[in-house]
Order: sequence, then C-alpha cells, then structure tokens
Amino acid sequence: MKLTLALDAMGGDHGPVEIIPAALSALEKHDDLRLILVGREDIIGRLLREHGVDVGERLKIHHASEVVEMHELPSLTLRNKKDSSLRVSINLVKDGVADACVSAGNTGALMATARFVLKMLPGIDRPAICATMPGIHGNTHLLDLGANVDSTSEQLFQFAVMGTELTSAVNNVSNPSVALLNIGAEEIKGNDRVKQAAALLANSHLNYVGFVEGNDIYTGKVDVIVCDGFVGNVALKASEGVAEFLNHNARMEFRQSFYGRLAALVSMPILKAIRRNIDPRRYNGASLLGLRGIVLKSHGSADKVSFAHAIDEAIVEVEKNVPQRISARLEKLFAEG
Amino acid sequence: MKLTLALDAMGGDHGPVEIIPAALSALEKHDDLRLILVGREDIIGRLLREHGVDVGERLKIHHASEVVEMHELPSLTLRNKKDSSLRVSINLVKDGVADACVSAGNTGALMATARFVLKMLPGIDRPAICATMPGIHGNTHLLDLGANVDSTSEQLFQFAVMGTELTSAVNNVSNPSVALLNIGAEEIKGNDRVKQAAALLANSHLNYVGFVEGNDIYTGKVDVIVCDGFVGNVALKASEGVAEFLNHNARMEFRQSFYGRLAALVSMPILKAIRRNIDPRRYNGASLLGLRGIVLKSHGSADKVSFAHAIDEAIVEVEKNVPQRISARLEKLFAEG
Repeated sequence: MKLTLALDAMGGDHGPVEIIPAALSALEKHDDLRLILVGREDIIGRLLREHGVDVGERLKIHHASEVVEMHELPSLTLRNKKDSSLRVSINLVKDGVADACVSAGNTGALMATARFVLKMLPGIDRPAICATMPGIHGNTHLLDLGANVDSTSEQLFQFAVMGTELTSAVNNVSNPSVALLNIGAEEIKGNDRVKQAAALLANSHLNYVGFVEGNDIYTGKVDVIVCDGFVGNVALKASEGVAEFLNHNARMEFRQSFYGRLAALVSMPILKAIRRNIDPRRYNGASLLGLRGIVLKSHGSADKVSFAHAIDEAIVEVEKNVPQRISARLEKLFAEG
Repeated sequence: MKLTLALDAMGGDHGPVEIIPAALSALEKHDDLRLILVGREDIIGRLLREHGVDVGERLKIHHASEVVEMHELPSLTLRNKKDSSLRVSINLVKDGVADACVSAGNTGALMATARFVLKMLPGIDRPAICATMPGIHGNTHLLDLGANVDSTSEQLFQFAVMGTELTSAVNNVSNPSVALLNIGAEEIKGNDRVKQAAALLANSHLNYVGFVEGNDIYTGKVDVIVCDGFVGNVALKASEGVAEFLNHNARMEFRQSFYGRLAALVSMPILKAIRRNIDPRRYNGASLLGLRGIVLKSHGSADKVSFAHAIDEAIVEVEKNVPQRISARLEKLFAEG
C-alpha cells in the first residue's frame, strides 16, 4: 500500500540533523513509503546534499519558513506562526497530500494546531495522547498522557474507545481488555469521575475489566489503561525518574571500585541486552487520538532510531486507518446505547 | 529520652511473625524505648516464648481481641471492630499511654480510625500520607500518597505545611524547599487546584520553589513534593511497577545464557550493593500527618527489617514532636496571613 507521510523536519531538540537520517532509513525499510520533509528548504536541502541524497518521487521537501520553539505558548503559535513546519505538516494531512504526519515538536502546539486544523471526530470532545508501555507480560497502551486535565467520565469513556481501537488495529488483538487506572487502599476507591466512567464502561460492549493500580502499567496484564492526562503524565514522568535513578545507582556501583569496573566489563553484553530490551526509543511515537487525521508525536529528544520508530507507528496507523475505526466504533456504540 | 510506642502486632500480611522480631531488634537498638505489642495475647505470648523473651518493663502485651483484615471496609471496621489491634493501638496514643503507634494494617481503616480517635490538628482538613522517596541527589518527602482524592488548593497548601515541618524535623533541614507536582508540555500548566495552590504557596513564608514534574520525585532536587492523593498514589505504584519490570528484565537476561549466569556470579557483590541502595525496606514507614498524634503506616508486606525501619521513623517523629511543630507553623502562618 502506497502511503505518504509529512515529517515536521524542524521539530524536536535536534531537528533535521536526526530527522533526515531517520527519514532515509524509513525509505529504505518501506518500499511503498513516500516522505515529505517539511521545513526550511535551505537547511533541509543542504543536509540532504551532505547525505548524498537527491529529492525525487519518494522524497520531497515542502518549504515552511517558521519554526515552533519547544516552549512557545500553543495559543500564540496558533495565531502567529501559520507557516511553521509543525502547522504545514498538519495542513498537508488536512489537504490529503499526506496520509499522516510525525512531529517531535512542542506537544501543546502540536495538539492545539492538530485540533484546530483537522478537527475532532464526531463524538470525541478532546484529543488524547496514547503511548505503548512495555511490561512483564506484554505491552499496554496508556492514555491520556497529558493532553487533558480534569477529564470527565464521558471523556475517560471516549479514551477507552480510542485506546481499544488503536490497540486492536496496531496489535491485532480482536477484543482488547480495557481497565481504568485507580488507587487502592481506600474504601470508596478513586474519585467520582473514575467511578462514573467505570459505570459507563461496564454498560458498554467494550471489554472492560475493571480497575488497575499504577504498577499494572508495567505488568502488561491489560491491553489498554485509561486515566486522566494529569495522572498519566505524572505516572509516565515518575517512571522515567525511577528508571533514571536506578540507572544512576547501577552506574555508580559498577564504577566506584576496581572490582566493579571488572564486573561491568564481564557483564557488558548482558547489560547491553537489558538496555536494549527496555530502550525507550523502541517505544517512541505517541498517537494523538480523536482527530480527523493521523498525527504522531515523537519525543522531543528523539534521535534517528527513535524518530524512525515513530515513522513506523504512523505507517501502521495509516494502514489500519485508525481514525476511521474509532469513528465506526463510536457509531456502533451510539447505535447500541 | 524515654518513649513508648504501641505496635499493632496483628496488622499486615505477616502479622506478629515479622513484627515481634522487628520489635526485639528495635529494643536492642534503642535503650530508652518501651514497646507495647497490641493484639491477641495468646498468639503474641506464644511467639515471645519461642523467641525466649519475657515481657517486662520495656516490652508489654496489650490484649486486643479482634483483627482488621486487609480488605475490610474502613467504615465497617470503625463501627464493628472496636477491640481490634489497630484501633486499640491508636487508643493508646490518644490516652497518652503510648507516644506513637505503628501499624502495617489496612491503610483505609488506619486512616479512618486515626482520624476518628485522635482528631485532626486545628487548621488541617484531612490527614495526608507522606513517605520518603530516594533520589539521585538526596531524599524527597512526597505527599499525599492516597489518603485524599480531589484535594482542594487549600488542602494542597496544608500538605505543603505538613511536609515542610516533617522534613525540617526529620532531616534537620531548616527551611526545606517545597514544590507542587504538575505536568509539563501544556500551555496552561496543570489544573485549577494546582494553580490556585501555587498562588497560596507563593504568598506564604514557606520555601516554595514552583512546579516540578514526575521525574523530579527521584532527582532529590527539592525536599518536599506536594500532590493530590490520587496522583501521588499512582506515581508511587507506577514507580514500583517500573522497578519490578526492570528487575524482571535484568533477571531474565542474566539467567538465560551460560554467559549471563557467569556474569551474574562475577557481578554478585555489585548487584547486591545496587539492591541494598535502593532497598524499599530502608524507606518503609509512611507518616499519617495532620492528626493530633503520631501514626506510622508500614507497608502491608513489611518484613522485620522493614517494620523495624518504620519503628525508627516513629521514634524520630516522637523525639521531634512533629504534630506540635505542624500546629505551631500553622498558627504562625495564620498570624502572618
């Protein structure tokens, strides 16, 4: 299946320096892929020449004169930077020139712009950010990761629908299990929104399995975990923090004695394998769900390996037509409900 | 300083089998400590005889006929189990027989009972659960860890006061830095409650340093991090989950080849050191803050090492008179305000 992706070549901490090599490796890997590099033609052109690559049928440059900085306010971006690489990438999706776009740029700006340009699917209030989390017994899709705060129970329900469709499309699971993230230990578990969302889910035809706690994000015991964006963002960042702390601790211990350095040398292949298994680059590419179009958010610090993975994610979502599946499921739920 | 602690000897997954050895090692470590083991006299008496220990001036048994199970509803416990080891332990604090109590029992029941029996400090709406989190550059006190959901901005402010006083008492820091847990990436960062709490904190004499994100729980860059209990609980459990996942992954890699097993053997002292540094048992003992009395919550699965650490925590809080410090700080803030 021939497909075209627009890449925001200027986004992220490294911009085209990492995105262009990622694009070139994606073109090698996927025969039917066409890429449009969106951004400053002079910069992108020069980098392509440095890589000894010409533009052509499968690789084009689409000029955009502006760049959204990582800490700009989304509302100002939306108003003042109409020719940013981020916005033009989304425009190409809207205009049907590209089937999806991938950006490592400012999350807030990407979300606000995607919502403004592409609009929401009918029945969805707000976009949600969804990512794949690795776990002991398999992967879990977690959403929302920070697009929304104070999500209502209806919104949590919509997240469950979107997560279900994304997971069934991408992981080829026919009826993915969905759980609500909640806290233990309390008599009246959780807050009202979670409890009301549980009632909505229990009465739906989704494969709702109940509440899970934070640790279950990494057990893989359910396919989809739904939470408010504030909670999901904190869970994700806390996880990054604890992984970094453990890593720091291990490095210190292996380094601080001669014996430790020897042990590190002996263990190198094993340590590398451990690192490879849990390499966050392999999970890069969060989906902005609920839009009338496919938008993938790459981590801002993505390198070429990482960005290439986000491109792979975008390809699968195009092939499976995730927005259309979400729409169809919502229609079905409304017809049933 | 002579002090007396009441230990809920029946609480937790292991009950007196782990709590009695913890009590005996605490008595050895602290010359001025007296302990009251609260629970079934027959069971506790038999276990003491097995350890070859007699009751006496420093170690007493206080009979309580009932036991609160780990998954009982707090409200039912409160109504129906008035002679539980959990409740009687708290009664001993209320009656001035013990200076503090430690329980590994049902968190919800402990909180509801402590609140009912001891009452809140003036100016504090609800108790908060606070624990020490290890980090790259030092420890951080994080609260609330699940006692409250949908905390108001005033409650978040109260958590900041309580966390400040606990940290300055326990860590001997004169003016601990306090941050609010928030999410990044968004234009209007966080929800209304967090933003309003930020305004309250900025106008106070607390050492408020602004927002941090989830990863900062493990950097140790601030002394106290304040959040709603739903968020804090998920962050804590997600951290446990990611640590367990990384641990599982490392174990698999070291075990699955002959070379891996060899490397594990060579690295054993280093791996043990890593494990020791991050041993959650060293951080066991969460404080229930805001009460007119000192109550420590041990992890339900605590073993003797872990429970002994919670006893150590209780001793420090008694020595520093944490509830009185919180009261004094609140009075001062109100006087200033």
